[in-house]
Amino acid sequence: MGGIRWVGFDGDDTLWKSEDYYRQAEQDFEAILAGYIDLGDRRMQQHLLDTERRNLKVFGYGVKGMTLSMLETAIQLTDERISARDLHRVIEIGRTTLQHPVDLLPGIREAVEAIARDHEIVLITKGDLFHQEAKIAQSGLADLFHRIEVVSEKDVPTYARVLQELEVAPAQFVMIGNSLRSDIEPVIQLGGWGIHMPYHVTWALETEHGLGEDVPNLVSVTGAVELPAALADIEGRAG
Amino acid sequence: MGGIRWVGFDGDDTLWKSEDYYRQAEQDFEAILAGYIDLGDRRMQQHLLDTERRNLKVFGYGVKGMTLSMLETAIQLTDERISARDLHRVIEIGRTTLQHPVDLLPGIREAVEAIARDHEIVLITKGDLFHQEAKIAQSGLADLFHRIEVVSEKDVPTYARVLQELEVAPAQFVMIGNSLRSDIEPVIQLGGWGIHMPYHVTWALETEHGLGEDVPNLVSVTGAVELPAALADIEGRAG
Repeated sequence: MGGIRWVGFDGDDTLWKSEDYYRQAEQDFEAILAGYIDLGDRRMQQHLLDTERRNLKVFGYGVKGMTLSMLETAIQLTDERISARDLHRVIEIGRTTLQHPVDLLPGIREAVEAIARDHEIVLITKGDLFHQEAKIAQSGLADLFHRIEVVSEKDVPTYARVLQELEVAPAQFVMIGNSLRSDIEPVIQLGGWGIHMPYHVTWALETEHGLGEDVPNLVSVTGAVELPAALADIEGRAG
Repeated sequence: MGGIRWVGFDGDDTLWKSEDYYRQAEQDFEAILAGYIDLGDRRMQQHLLDTERRNLKVFGYGVKGMTLSMLETAIQLTDERISARDLHRVIEIGRTTLQHPVDLLPGIREAVEAIARDHEIVLITKGDLFHQEAKIAQSGLADLFHRIEVVSEKDVPTYARVLQELEVAPAQFVMIGNSLRSDIEPVIQLGGWGIHMPYHVTWALETEHGLGEDVPNLVSVTGAVELPAALADIEGRAG
């Protein structure tokens, strides 16, 4: 019996597909803008990213903020030439993204069930409260979790607060997720453990992190089927 | 010593001004639309409300959803004639509303401090997670609360979950708020207590509730200064 008491799971791109739908939204957005500007110079993607980064401080994460940033980008890049009809199509991209199907990643249900047999498990997911709750409900996984936390930012203070509410020491906590920046780095900084399960696409703003090459408290896996063994590995070292 | 263990406070229009800023946003929105359509027929307000009600299921509560609903309303009511520049002004209304100052209501800090001396207190507030957290931080009241819950809907299942997490029976819980629909009715239905402190304006979608004339577990006050005495009244009856 190891010393790990609670295991945390990220939601987007760890339990279910998410970034793919954002990429689709960006493609649909580009297709609308292509009627107004030359997309060859990559100005559009950079402008959207800059707008999103600036707006994050006011809008926070999530599809609604992305949609407002897209509208702003479209208006600015077209020098206000874009039609109301096309801006309505941008709003519809947001509505479609908010209602995307919740597709579980391969093997994740079995992995969550296996880990829940021996541990308390918590879902810690970032973004828009309303949309995250809708996805959690649709995932069919809600009942497996002993606790669900939707947070506005995944940083050291947030994890410190959640671990305090769970009454667990960082050394007894493992976080599983696809983002080194949001799921792994802050938990490691607190003295906890991380299991990194990369997803095939990562949002540009999630790629920035300060982790070095060799992090002793970090294990990497290539898919959900490897999660129970990775956790057992950590158990052996934390016990 | 009464039988009340936890006291809940609503945020918007209970601790701080909120609806006034939404009303201001609506006025600014009308001023933009006045350049395109005749506002005399009240079609605009009703259309916005219908759009917001329909979009609530996808967008949830909060300023970002309101802004997207305003954009949609503006495009539809002008038959797509509205300019990109004016739609950008609508986005700016949203940005301004998201950054409105947090003004505490008169006497509320003293009332919260007085009640916190003898009770555990929890802030239960509805809406956009990111915006609510920003307002809580700016209010300067965060440290007074033993617990803070931002929820996506204030209904019976939500209050049941929160009370379960607080490990308190409904009969030992009092909720204080301005909305009969969101703050009082579901708590009363669970068997808890309510203190209704009306605000001078109420959003149309918050006025619908099913409470009758004489509700034994409900006390009404006209301002924050009356809150400690109202709670003492309930303590006497719950003890």
